[in-house]
Order: sequence, then structure tokens, then C-alpha cells
Amino acid sequence: MEVSLTQEKLTRALAAASRIATNKANLPVLNNVLFRVEDSKVIIAATNLELAATTSVGAKIVKPGAVTVPAKIISEFVGNLPSGTVELSTKGSALTIKSGGYTSTLNGIDAEEFPELPVINEETSIHYTLSMADFKQAINQTIFACSNDVTRPVLTGVYWHSHDGWLYLVGTDGYRLAERRLVETTSELEAIVPTSTLHEVLRASTDTIDEVDVLFDESQVRFRVGDMEITSRLIDGKYPNYRQLLPSDTTPVATVETSELVRTTKIAALFARESSGSITLSTENETQKLSLDSVASDVGENSSKIDAVIASDGSVSLNSRYLLEVLSVIDAKSLTISYTGKLAPIVVRPTAENPEYTHIIMPLKS
Amino acid sequence: MEVSLTQEKLTRALAAASRIATNKANLPVLNNVLFRVEDSKVIIAATNLELAATTSVGAKIVKPGAVTVPAKIISEFVGNLPSGTVELSTKGSALTIKSGGYTSTLNGIDAEEFPELPVINEETSIHYTLSMADFKQAINQTIFACSNDVTRPVLTGVYWHSHDGWLYLVGTDGYRLAERRLVETTSELEAIVPTSTLHEVLRASTDTIDEVDVLFDESQVRFRVGDMEITSRLIDGKYPNYRQLLPSDTTPVATVETSELVRTTKIAALFARESSGSITLSTENETQKLSLDSVASDVGENSSKIDAVIASDGSVSLNSRYLLEVLSVIDAKSLTISYTGKLAPIVVRPTAENPEYTHIIMPLKS
Repeated sequence: MEVSLTQEKLTRALAAASRIATNKANLPVLNNVLFRVEDSKVIIAATNLELAATTSVGAKIVKPGAVTVPAKIISEFVGNLPSGTVELSTKGSALTIKSGGYTSTLNGIDAEEFPELPVINEETSIHYTLSMADFKQAINQTIFACSNDVTRPVLTGVYWHSHDGWLYLVGTDGYRLAERRLVETTSELEAIVPTSTLHEVLRASTDTIDEVDVLFDESQVRFRVGDMEITSRLIDGKYPNYRQLLPSDTTPVATVETSELVRTTKIAALFARESSGSITLSTENETQKLSLDSVASDVGENSSKIDAVIASDGSVSLNSRYLLEVLSVIDAKSLTISYTGKLAPIVVRPTAENPEYTHIIMPLKS
Repeated sequence: MEVSLTQEKLTRALAAASRIATNKANLPVLNNVLFRVEDSKVIIAATNLELAATTSVGAKIVKPGAVTVPAKIISEFVGNLPSGTVELSTKGSALTIKSGGYTSTLNGIDAEEFPELPVINEETSIHYTLSMADFKQAINQTIFACSNDVTRPVLTGVYWHSHDGWLYLVGTDGYRLAERRLVETTSELEAIVPTSTLHEVLRASTDTIDEVDVLFDESQVRFRVGDMEITSRLIDGKYPNYRQLLPSDTTPVATVETSELVRTTKIAALFARESSGSITLSTENETQKLSLDSVASDVGENSSKIDAVIASDGSVSLNSRYLLEVLSVIDAKSLTISYTGKLAPIVVRPTAENPEYTHIIMPLKS
């Protein structure tokens, strides 16, 4: 193989490859990134067998061929090179990388040993083209609510599914649930995408890319972001029927400015460390104030009152971390809070006529 | 005590106090910050018995008094408050902090239990007023070369001393040495200042403060930065006579652009991980090139050549981390490297007629 390509494109492809390549596996070649000439392009790929990233970079091809070399060191080496043309050439399974006065030779592994890259039948798959801004927001609004508990694998992914003609994304860990309505759809979809895959897609999403293509087949999903494709297995299993848990009455009890509630929750959380994050949220119709209270018996106590539009009196205890996390992904200037009793789920939504985002937090017994 | 003061000033004073307050000591009151009304000011202080920070903040005094409360939680609470006036009032040893709708009460410890704050006799002390820019640069250029080895305490501080009418700062760990000439002086000074103290002074140095006052007595140093005073014990012991180690011949072997050498060293360091960071620096008079080479037997090898002004041929091996660290504190556009042989110390200096900064790295046997 003998090719030349730009340092900028190579750096981006290698950054993704070096995050996915893994030295934990028994297969040393998974530690490596694959370079392979296909037509007038260089394919740069890495896989951990669950997840593969493939970038197709335009290059000047002098001689076709293929090789694999350790992903982390070539990524760091190329990332430190000045911008300009980088020449790659192989001699057996060693790769020499040259740019101006900078030369490195890396010992590699024959490309024959690299696993097959995943294939998706584009014609039979379900296909969405999403605006990058909506996609990023929807992922950010759901991914943090997913579980880390590997004994319940279905909850460790984001649930993409169709319902009443819309595509919804959902994340839950059993203590809170985030649901985001994304686009209209005529397809029937039910798929659970690992959070690690979605994190990788977010990292690959630069500001210059406006759209992301998403393709689902029976067992895989592919995200196409610019010249990079990230393909991953779906999580096996049946997602819980979460809709039966959604409260039917979501009349707002309080409407409050998001930034003020963030500040107040951060303050309340300081005093809630001893009590596993428990804070008490109260609404008072007469004064039109929302208050957050927390007590740390050793340290002291805290009470904050902020202006709000209050519909009824009430009080509920909840985990301050869960509240802070949802507040950080509500982009709206104000939000509504609803609950129907001390032990009823708490619903947080951006203020909007027909909110596309719903977040539910289970209350704590206070 | 009953006082009111601005959130901004209180936040800055508490940030320093909460870094110094320590919950490692047997004395619980050291975990706390002291508030004490003195004249028309509030003194806000913390100490770990080695190091004390005292800020004197203008305030509206309704009722004098004093109290101590846990430093970390009050610092975080006040830091999250909106800007504006904060009211502090005591009831016994509890402190209530109020700002608009935000109220907290912290359980404290009687101010009588707080240790005496350190005193320096200003009239008999040696006193320097330094420009903040020079001070920061001088500390940054020397502090990283100090040792972490507590069995050689004198090397864990920066050595401030007078020599030939100048004040010098020196740091060394035995493998490299950094010397910075700072200002002319008529005093005789020899003092070793703990690096932890200097880090604290750097953190207290905001962009709006142009000068720092430094006072030395027999056993203490005080830094006055705006309305904050940081006072610390000096390190006991005799600093080694490092001047006898300085090479007498420091004729430049190479003059090279700083940013290019940074890039080249970072690249060489990637391949030097297996060999404890060892890289080889060579100069070639004929081609006027400086090269850095490194080899990782398993991974591969690397060679970089960059343009330089070369006076003579030569080659020396050194630790890439040491070279990277000194390059990061040389603010000059270009620098000179000198050495007199394969096992002679390597001298790195900013390019200048009379360089105020000298850095020495001991070579490795290659």
C-alpha cells in the first residue's frame, strides 16, 4: 500500500478508531486500526466486535493494499503532525508514516487477520435522516437516564420505537424515565441501542455536519455521520411497557424559570449529601413560591424560596441529583412540574403547548 | 455577629479558605473557616497550621463577633448564590447566611477554639514588591522542577536567595534544575518556600491584581495579594550549593523555534514510553538540522528532523518528559540548547542576550 492524504481527515478517522480499538480482547488485532485501499479511497476502520467505526477518506492512491497497526499510537502520532499531506506506505506488515521531517514506522499485523466489518442491507432496513441538532438533543435528553446495571441489559440502552405515527426515544433506570418524541414515522420500529454506541456517535458529530442517517436491520444499527459509519449490535430483549407508568394527569402544579431552579437545586443538594440526595420540593399557592428544603443533621439546614406560577399547594421529596440531571438537558427558559400526591411520580417538562420531552422522577419517602 | 457583604468578595475569600481548611487533622476546628469582625472589616481565615490564608473584606457591621463554620459547605453555598448582598448572623455557634430567598444555617465551633493566626514583624522582615506577571512566570518556571520526595525536604520547595545583588528562585529534584533571576536586591536572603504555598498564592492571583508583596522573617513567608494574605512556614535546612553544578560553558549548540521543538518532543515521547521516556537529541552542522529519535522495540520507531541553527555536531539522550516540561514554561519564541558531551548536563535557555532563565537536565546513558 502507498497512499497520501490530509492530516486533518486522517486525524478525525484515527481519533474514532483509537477510542473503539480495545486491548482488553484476546484478539491482538482488535487493538489495531485497519487501513485498506478501496477504489480511490482509504478505508480506516476499528472494531471491538460489538461496535465498528469505518471512515472512508479520499486519498491519492499510488499502490493499493491493506495493513493494521496499533490504533492509539498512530492516532497520537498523526494528531501531533503539522497540517498538510501525510504519506503512508507499507513494507510487509510495517507501516511507515511520513510528513515533512517527521517519520515513524509502526509494526503491524497482517490485514487478513482483521475481522469482517459489519454489513447492513440498506434496501430492507428502516431508514431515518435526522437533523443533527435534533438528534444530539434527543440523545442528550435520554441517555443519562439509562441504567448501568448489566443484570438488566435492556435498560442499559436507549429504546427507539414507533408509537401512534411518531418515533420516540426512551431511557430509564427504574427510578426515573426520559421520553423524547423525535420525528413522524410510518415504519414499525422497536430497537434498543447501547449507550456506548450513542456516545461514540455524539463524539463523531462535528459542527460542520448537519444530518445523521440512521439505519436499522433486525439486529444492528448504523449511524452515518459525514464520511464515518458507526455500526453496532442492538441489545436483545423486550423493553418494559413504560407507557402504563406515565401519569395520566400532568396538569402543571408549578411553572418556574429553569436557571433559577438549577441554582436552587444545586444549593439544596449541598445539604442533601448526608441524606442520599433527598430534598423536599413544596409549592404554596398563596405566596406563589416554590421552595426547596434540605437538612444535614450534623452540618445544618437550608431553605430556598423562588418565584413561580403555582396552581396548588403540595410537597414531595426527591433525589437532588436526578432533578439536577434533567434540568441540565431542558433547553427551554422555563419548565413545568406536576405531581398528584406525596408518593406519585413527578413529571418535569419544558414549558410548551405540546411538549416533546417528558421526564419522570419517582419520589422518595420523606 | 451580624454583618452584610457582597457575594463576590465573600466567594473569593471562601474559595481560598476551603482549599486550606483540612479535615485530615485531629483538630476539628481546622476544618472550619473563621469569621471575625475587626474594625469595619470581616476577617475570613483558614489554616492548616503550616499555611494560613486571611482575607480582610469590607462589610456593613451591625454587630461585632466571631464564629467558625465548616469551610467547604459554606464556600459551595455562597458560590452558588446570585450576586448581591449576603447577610451573616450568628446565634451561639450557628451561622445563618441569607441572600434574597436563600437561607442556610450552619452548625459551627466557637471562635475561641480557632488557632492563633501567624504574625510577622513587618519592620524587621525582608520585603519585596514584585510585578504579578514576573512573579507568576518565575514560580511557573521553577516549581515543576522541585522534588516530591519527602525524605529530602529542602528539595520540595523553591529556594529564594540573593546572589551578586540579585534575587534568584531555584527548583531542583536532582535530575533537573531550574533557575530564574528575578529582581535586584540589597538584602541577604536564603529561604525555602513550600511548593504548596506557592500553588496557593498562584490560585489567589486574579487578573485584576498587578502586584504581590512578599515578606520574609526568620521562619515564615507572607504573600500579600490584594486583600488576601497567605502566610506559611519556611522549610528548615540548608539548600545544596547548586551553583557548582552549573556548566561553565553554555555556548549554544543549537538554536531552535520553541513551538517546533514542542511538537517534535511530543511525537518522540510517544515512542519513548517503553524506554522510560528516553529520547536522543542530535545536531548536524552540515544540514543545520536538529533531530529527535526514539525507539519502542515492540511498537516501532520514530525520527523527526527540524530546522535549527547548529554550531556543532553532537548527540545526547534525555528524558522526554523533562524536556516537554521546560519547553512549556519558556515563553520565548526560540531557545538555545547547549551541552559539551554525551554525559554532560544539557542547558536549555530562552534566546536572549542575557537570559534570566536557565534550565539544566541531566543526560541519560543511551
